[in-house]
Amino acid sequence: MNINIPRGTQDVLPEQAAHWQYVEDIAREISHKYNYTEIRTPIFEATELFQRGVGDTTDIVQKEMYTFQDRSGRLITLRPEGTAPVVRSYVENKLHGHPQQPLKLYYFGPMFRYERPESGRMRQFYQFGIEAIGSDDPAIDAEVIAMAMDIYEACGLDRLKLVINSLGDKESRTAHKNALISHFSPRIAEFCEDCQARLEQNPLRILDCKVDRDHPLQETAPAILDYLNEDSQRYFEKVQRLLTQMEIPFVIDANLVRGLDYYTNTSFEIMLEEPEFGAITTLTGGGRYEGLIEDLGGPSISGIGFGLSIERLLMALEARGALPDVNRGLDVYLVTVGDVAAEKGAGILRELRAEGLSADKDYLGKKVKAQFKAADRLRAAYTAILGEEELASGMVKLRDMSSGEQEDIPMKRLAAHVRQLQK
Amino acid sequence: MNINIPRGTQDVLPEQAAHWQYVEDIAREISHKYNYTEIRTPIFEATELFQRGVGDTTDIVQKEMYTFQDRSGRLITLRPEGTAPVVRSYVENKLHGHPQQPLKLYYFGPMFRYERPESGRMRQFYQFGIEAIGSDDPAIDAEVIAMAMDIYEACGLDRLKLVINSLGDKESRTAHKNALISHFSPRIAEFCEDCQARLEQNPLRILDCKVDRDHPLQETAPAILDYLNEDSQRYFEKVQRLLTQMEIPFVIDANLVRGLDYYTNTSFEIMLEEPEFGAITTLTGGGRYEGLIEDLGGPSISGIGFGLSIERLLMALEARGALPDVNRGLDVYLVTVGDVAAEKGAGILRELRAEGLSADKDYLGKKVKAQFKAADRLRAAYTAILGEEELASGMVKLRDMSSGEQEDIPMKRLAAHVRQLQK
Repeated sequence: MNINIPRGTQDVLPEQAAHWQYVEDIAREISHKYNYTEIRTPIFEATELFQRGVGDTTDIVQKEMYTFQDRSGRLITLRPEGTAPVVRSYVENKLHGHPQQPLKLYYFGPMFRYERPESGRMRQFYQFGIEAIGSDDPAIDAEVIAMAMDIYEACGLDRLKLVINSLGDKESRTAHKNALISHFSPRIAEFCEDCQARLEQNPLRILDCKVDRDHPLQETAPAILDYLNEDSQRYFEKVQRLLTQMEIPFVIDANLVRGLDYYTNTSFEIMLEEPEFGAITTLTGGGRYEGLIEDLGGPSISGIGFGLSIERLLMALEARGALPDVNRGLDVYLVTVGDVAAEKGAGILRELRAEGLSADKDYLGKKVKAQFKAADRLRAAYTAILGEEELASGMVKLRDMSSGEQEDIPMKRLAAHVRQLQK
Repeated sequence: MNINIPRGTQDVLPEQAAHWQYVEDIAREISHKYNYTEIRTPIFEATELFQRGVGDTTDIVQKEMYTFQDRSGRLITLRPEGTAPVVRSYVENKLHGHPQQPLKLYYFGPMFRYERPESGRMRQFYQFGIEAIGSDDPAIDAEVIAMAMDIYEACGLDRLKLVINSLGDKESRTAHKNALISHFSPRIAEFCEDCQARLEQNPLRILDCKVDRDHPLQETAPAILDYLNEDSQRYFEKVQRLLTQMEIPFVIDANLVRGLDYYTNTSFEIMLEEPEFGAITTLTGGGRYEGLIEDLGGPSISGIGFGLSIERLLMALEARGALPDVNRGLDVYLVTVGDVAAEKGAGILRELRAEGLSADKDYLGKKVKAQFKAADRLRAAYTAILGEEELASGMVKLRDMSSGEQEDIPMKRLAAHVRQLQK
């Protein structure tokens, strides 16, 4: 009887996995260029971490978490996002005492949200993300944005649109929040139940309500940018100046908001300018957060980060026809004739591999013709042929698969010879 | 308030993560040399998969699985091992129709078992594993063993001990099973309850019972090697002959058994010859399985694989003092003096990184001396100094950190110049 893969998850098969490796290698290499180092946190965390770090009132925590009791009755949750675990680790491991400050971290790994699966939205999705913790220099904000842009561009995506906004500091946000309450209060009865509940607690979230998106009051709602105090304004201007200096074009969108109280000052999204992609238009988003580290028991410092979906990046590359051919091919395919040669072949393969070459042979007793076909399919640069004659003479026939040229090589010198030819 | 990491899990911090990358890169590169390609399956699977694929009567399934209901009431389980998911994917994606046969797959990723955490045994542990599915040529068995050995040796471990055994084919196993039943039956009342239950169903598992390990009947129990039929014997001899040809030393241990019905013919373990390591003595184990693929709805073919714990490999490397220094260092650290230079620095960093160089600067308004200290700590090959004087002249001072030599370089040519110096 067949057992199927869980709904909303996917297998990454070898042909696809090569592309995953391709984009991950790029992200890793760019992380190194920006002096970010890797951190790995567990797949699950105490449920409380996300209730606190993502927010009790969010859809993620209320509806989308994979939460369960372990065998000792502890409530644990498969991580729905990467920031809270990294901050938990930062605090627990006292990384504010690390000599490198700000601490610039990156992570890879699966995240889990119980949503209705659709194109570009899986219940298990794979994220690359970064967090720079411990400096509120606007230059870090600009660097983080530049890094996200670099990754997409290095993967071969162009026509990207960078949208930035500022949510201001606490003071600015409070002023804006009060303005929003005044704005929506008189007609709040016209809004959905969720929005009515949000009014006092977090009116910012009314702005991205999917139910009430067309209500006329949305259009005229006070924009955060009009409520930035002098500090926040100066901060935002500096981020813009730095982006300009880095020659990174951007547009400001005052509607780019993030519902959580932790978010502060810089907020950004990178989109693909390709309207027909629909759901995958937004490639990544990120921003600065303040208070989260302190709330989890750490010092009063802020951080900034972004998380990007590998699946979405690959979909974008595929849609743009920008996925490269990453098949590395095989160095040597060993063709053997007869049982003795097949057995002898095991030793030859081992020597080839010990020399650093990728090599393979047949394991199904295929005829010679089928073995050559396999060599072709694997894009072998060379085939080495070992039959009765070769066994007797201690030589193998080496064929260059692109030129078709053949030469006889002493068996013992095969690996070194191919290595030489490659140079 | 602090929230702690879940019991039995660990954070891999940057200094450690570099070592994880190091061994993973080796495993990946050796996989390529052996023509194995990557597959990625989800973190969780339908619980039934492991009940069926690992075995209802095993400790893993009975006591150690992280099993829970998702929001729609489906029973899902965090994967406790890698073989069943790969076989599920092989069957579901009809990979027996893939042009490359046997299909040689590798995987990386976390596995989960609810056990009492101790040194070298975590509830979330990270595995590298391979599965070669679709050929029962003994040469594949030898190749799989060679590959495991190669990975450890390439990581810098020597004094390894390879232990092999054969569990025989179905016929041999049945003969052996009957002999075990006859052997233990008369005195089965002296054994633990678990063993009494095992007697009829799976007497092989009595042999590795921790409770009854010292019972005198254990010593005299019939060994599988005496019950191999001719086919199984020939198979086992060929595996040995191939290992000898590959110059891989091994010892045969008839007590190396695996409790599951699926296991057949070749079985192996690789151990560290270092008695004082205790729990981490066994580095990896693997073997051939038959029936599993068919039971999950696929064709009647067999596979062979192994899984190795990255944590255990790293512990062994550390214990042997074989962990290399993998800090890649920074190419350029930019030292800036004053606000204008700091801001200008953002553009310079971007140019350096665009040129493929790793580069960083200060984001905490540190004094020049502290900036040089940071450059040292990051092992920067060069520092580029940008102060008022340099801003005025459009030059930067480039210092070779190993020689101490300095030269003035036009700001615009800095990145290209460093690139040149590196060659």
